[in-house]
Amino acid sequence: MDDVTESTDRSDRDSIRTTDFTMLGTGAMGSALAAALLDAGRSVTVWNRTPGRATDLVARGARAADSVRKAVLASPVVVACLLKHASVEETLGPVAADLRGRTLLNVTTTSPNESRQLAAWAAEHGVDYLDGAIMAVPAMIGSRAGQIFYSGSRAAYDSLLPTLEVWATSEFHGEDAGRASLVDLAMLSGMYQMFTGFFHGAAMVASMGMSAADFAARQAPFLAAMTEGLDGYAKVIDGGDYTVPGQQSLDFSDLTHIVRASEEEGVDPSPIAGVQALISGQIAAGHGSEGLARIYESLRSDA
Amino acid sequence: MDDVTESTDRSDRDSIRTTDFTMLGTGAMGSALAAALLDAGRSVTVWNRTPGRATDLVARGARAADSVRKAVLASPVVVACLLKHASVEETLGPVAADLRGRTLLNVTTTSPNESRQLAAWAAEHGVDYLDGAIMAVPAMIGSRAGQIFYSGSRAAYDSLLPTLEVWATSEFHGEDAGRASLVDLAMLSGMYQMFTGFFHGAAMVASMGMSAADFAARQAPFLAAMTEGLDGYAKVIDGGDYTVPGQQSLDFSDLTHIVRASEEEGVDPSPIAGVQALISGQIAAGHGSEGLARIYESLRSDA
Repeated sequence: MDDVTESTDRSDRDSIRTTDFTMLGTGAMGSALAAALLDAGRSVTVWNRTPGRATDLVARGARAADSVRKAVLASPVVVACLLKHASVEETLGPVAADLRGRTLLNVTTTSPNESRQLAAWAAEHGVDYLDGAIMAVPAMIGSRAGQIFYSGSRAAYDSLLPTLEVWATSEFHGEDAGRASLVDLAMLSGMYQMFTGFFHGAAMVASMGMSAADFAARQAPFLAAMTEGLDGYAKVIDGGDYTVPGQQSLDFSDLTHIVRASEEEGVDPSPIAGVQALISGQIAAGHGSEGLARIYESLRSDA
Repeated sequence: MDDVTESTDRSDRDSIRTTDFTMLGTGAMGSALAAALLDAGRSVTVWNRTPGRATDLVARGARAADSVRKAVLASPVVVACLLKHASVEETLGPVAADLRGRTLLNVTTTSPNESRQLAAWAAEHGVDYLDGAIMAVPAMIGSRAGQIFYSGSRAAYDSLLPTLEVWATSEFHGEDAGRASLVDLAMLSGMYQMFTGFFHGAAMVASMGMSAADFAARQAPFLAAMTEGLDGYAKVIDGGDYTVPGQQSLDFSDLTHIVRASEEEGVDPSPIAGVQALISGQIAAGHGSEGLARIYESLRSDA
């Protein structure tokens, strides 16, 4: 194994910066990110909690480190792509002093507040912190079809940008480290609700013998076409006037017949009953003649 | 007004079949359907509960009837495009005898069981019943960009098909009259859940000052791209084996960080908390390592 130097003497640590990037975590996403760096001619040190998960990357030229500390010391930029926030704290906590003066790019999925906590921790230890939220599956990394949102250190973002663009389309969302994660989670929230809507619809038609594949063949192009309507809803929301003419009213959007049909077919109506509850709430508040987008106000009402 | 004949003598009723189609209900959708028929060279009689709502159609060549009975007697095919199921019963109940021997095409939004009730009522009165469920906004009628699902009388569907194709892409879903409505409601359920997901995501990012339009500009293409994943989920559902490799696991799909982030931003988490409840249920049942599509089974579990 082409391992990094065994020297771990603190005074030597600058001299053992042997690679451009260190990747902590070589699961499916970490491996895709490291591979794209190697393809773009960057030198990469990799580490994974479970050893031996980076064989392919080593074969492509990566150097494997057998400890987090050695991995951190190997590069000026350390990328963390771990399971979850707790894994980042657990992995980096013991090597805080070794991270000083380096850039930490954390692309582990975290909540906005978890990202802010990590940014505060990094600041305390003299680490330049950039948070990344990946809107892509591993297979999309390197194709620019994916998007990665960043927030935190603007300086780190600007200097890393030529490399970040190797992975995906990049967008910087501000110095509040939690913002990339917030946009990411908002986007994923929409995606999971769309998937659940599909599962619910597929369950409804199953009772008449339609396969999920037959339903998907109709639902996918229909939903894709309907995404064109989001901008119209957004304009109404941003304008704040839900009485603008030409909208589908809340009264017209009453979904009790869908809830009832779901029940009649023996399908749990809760996913669509939740939407109807939001619509009913606005109608009960006297807004039935206003547009459907007004349920946005119901969601914001806890603010 | 170019009204139909005043004669309402039962024995004369065949002789007063003066138009090809009768449209009951000239709201936005009924008007669009009638206009498309006129454009395609069909003669049309129109009736609306509130008189004077068909002026444009009359200017384009439609004949206005001043009673439901006269409207029904005017054509061999009667299309009902009314507010809701109760309006259909209310409007057609008194003219059941006049409908005998004619074809009733009901495109009013109804639940599957309501369509089945109307089909049974029609059979009892010697009326050939076809149910239609429209997947289009009025502006799409005539462009074939929309879809209309049909179920009920196969003979009526086959004979009307050349005309139905004038409106939209047509699909026949079987002789059970409730099926068109069921597919329609399942499709709409997915759409409303997608819209709600967008409203929820837009509410989440509003706290960081991102406009709904800026969010829509990111969310719409992302969701459209993600619809390409529905077929993969469908294949897993149809196969019934949620352990097929290559799927995103339920454990990995845990959305508690999205629920928490939503709460932290002061946004009602209920739309995404409902999805998480389905995921948690499957994980609690010991299926955490299986694919996300397994939540379909949670929805079907009431069956």
